[in-house]
Amino acid sequence: MENLLNGIEEITLMGPGPSCVNKAVLDAMAKSTLGHLDPKFINIMDAIKEQMKTLLHTNNKLTIPVSGTGSAGMETCFVNLIEKDDPVLILINGVFGMRMQDVATRLGADVDTIEFEWGTPVVVDEVKAKLSEKKYKIVAVVHAETSTGVKNPVPEIGALVKDTDALYLVDAVTSLGGIPIRLDDWNIDVFYSGTQKCLSCPPGLAPISFSEKAVEAIKKRKTKVPNWYLDLTMIINYWEGATRAYHHTAPINMLYALYQALYLILEEGEENVHKRHMNNHLRLVNGLDKIGIKMLVDSQYRLPMLNSVYIPQGADDAGVRSALLKDHKIEIGAGLGPLAGKIWRIGLMGHTARSENVDKLLTALKSLI
Amino acid sequence: MENLLNGIEEITLMGPGPSCVNKAVLDAMAKSTLGHLDPKFINIMDAIKEQMKTLLHTNNKLTIPVSGTGSAGMETCFVNLIEKDDPVLILINGVFGMRMQDVATRLGADVDTIEFEWGTPVVVDEVKAKLSEKKYKIVAVVHAETSTGVKNPVPEIGALVKDTDALYLVDAVTSLGGIPIRLDDWNIDVFYSGTQKCLSCPPGLAPISFSEKAVEAIKKRKTKVPNWYLDLTMIINYWEGATRAYHHTAPINMLYALYQALYLILEEGEENVHKRHMNNHLRLVNGLDKIGIKMLVDSQYRLPMLNSVYIPQGADDAGVRSALLKDHKIEIGAGLGPLAGKIWRIGLMGHTARSENVDKLLTALKSLI
Repeated sequence: MENLLNGIEEITLMGPGPSCVNKAVLDAMAKSTLGHLDPKFINIMDAIKEQMKTLLHTNNKLTIPVSGTGSAGMETCFVNLIEKDDPVLILINGVFGMRMQDVATRLGADVDTIEFEWGTPVVVDEVKAKLSEKKYKIVAVVHAETSTGVKNPVPEIGALVKDTDALYLVDAVTSLGGIPIRLDDWNIDVFYSGTQKCLSCPPGLAPISFSEKAVEAIKKRKTKVPNWYLDLTMIINYWEGATRAYHHTAPINMLYALYQALYLILEEGEENVHKRHMNNHLRLVNGLDKIGIKMLVDSQYRLPMLNSVYIPQGADDAGVRSALLKDHKIEIGAGLGPLAGKIWRIGLMGHTARSENVDKLLTALKSLI
Repeated sequence: MENLLNGIEEITLMGPGPSCVNKAVLDAMAKSTLGHLDPKFINIMDAIKEQMKTLLHTNNKLTIPVSGTGSAGMETCFVNLIEKDDPVLILINGVFGMRMQDVATRLGADVDTIEFEWGTPVVVDEVKAKLSEKKYKIVAVVHAETSTGVKNPVPEIGALVKDTDALYLVDAVTSLGGIPIRLDDWNIDVFYSGTQKCLSCPPGLAPISFSEKAVEAIKKRKTKVPNWYLDLTMIINYWEGATRAYHHTAPINMLYALYQALYLILEEGEENVHKRHMNNHLRLVNGLDKIGIKMLVDSQYRLPMLNSVYIPQGADDAGVRSALLKDHKIEIGAGLGPLAGKIWRIGLMGHTARSENVDKLLTALKSLI
């Protein structure tokens, strides 16, 4: 029988995620599977919690990876907190803000939104005005909008939410590991991310963190969390305490990979990692400028790890992406929603953010447009 | 910095899962991560669907792995089908039947149950009587009850449900790959399993399959599925059709592992795999009998892959399990619920079901009791 896995070649992943994975992380996944209650595995779980707290700059006890991809992280945060008709404010300037709206609405929340043009950031004064009009249980925003490449003013919004009773919920799927994020300093109560972006781990886990205030809100629920798989009140009994109560079988080998990915980031040093992202972003922007490719987002709001660029006039969107993949073994991303056909999304996430990758892409693009 | 992954030793996993993983499957996980829309990756996704259909003996078009562990499979099946007050019948003779009850209740179903003594199977006549009393939307049962080692009469119950309008939902987490299961012949409408049992793949994915009748039931919903992450109406657009619409980033490397695990089973031949499970089960039971260890379940209802045995008088439950793990590098499982402290659970799942493992365990147990 033909085995399709033999045909897998290494691709330089420069799209919106997954990103390139360091060989040490791939090798970690291939380590022998331990039992999910094995003391050695529990030590690894405990170490992952500490690694995460360090990287998130938080003392939140409830800081763990959830057994699903980044979107499972989003689902976890909302489903544990929302009960019918809870007022929720969602700030939207791209696909992932819209996804939050969909998730929260399905769970029965009373969802208000403020929408901003795609490619521009959330305007803090509009949030301020809205917060003075109505009390919310949750105020939610995406830190790094992967669909546009815009960085939202997360600390500034946090300072506003702090003066209300609301919980501040932040999507950090694409930001974590690429730009600074400080949960406790920025008043973030509810946090989720994914492994396949700047952590440079394969997709499959969603780091989350809940403040004491958010944990209290779960405890005050009148109804059970309507999702057994993602119910944190039970999951926490497996991740904490002397007796580790079985909930579901943890994705053991994925957790090895996350441990190794976080290990590499902490070993390199968080600041160095952020600098590497920024330097390679600037190298890319400079190189793109030289071949006449323009950025979608104003320089002050740009994310280093997700670069949205206008497709040059005359270039064939799908054709160029396909040629990059086939002939140059480079993947870049297409535009989504209103930006489909108008932009490409170039990722410089985690292990992808290296000068040789930037140069390789620039050379390839130059030959194709 | 110390790296905890360096301390991982190979353990012979003879508990209730995860099971031993073939090196070819571990190596598959360490292959380069491809993009989730890469044509080569989509080919692997398509191949996994075909492998699954072959192993499940079904033509169900909606046959895919869900991005979570086995319990996410359970959640997926119920959340896509249940709307408020839908009548559901759940047959319970162990932990996983109880879990189904909890999942369905949280989703607002009107749940009836029939309970049977743990360690004994579901009694078909009692199901028949119940089905004549009331109409159900779903009738649910666990094929292989991992908490007891009992095989439930899934084909016989299927024949009864066929004469009603109900959907027949079967948990095959522990059975798939160890004993025969035939979706279409047995009238199974809704199926879920896990990867870390007899498929001998690390935990992290949940194979599911829905019949046309079950898909129609999703389409007839009056409300949206109250779980964005597991909404099959959207997930299917990524797994099927010419345009693969992005939903969430698939757990790429876990899917490599599942492909390889299914590849190995189909290469060995399904019947051979089942025979290997049965032969090693009989070898274990025979060996246990010689050292005075008795089985919990009557021989006619026993699962080959999950052997519940009475803890011999005078033996220290946790002490023996701990010594097995530390001194012999063998993991076995404890009892759950009413069977805690009374039984051990010995798994012979997938790659674990080999005579050398059986013999190694028997020798070790003999030295410890």
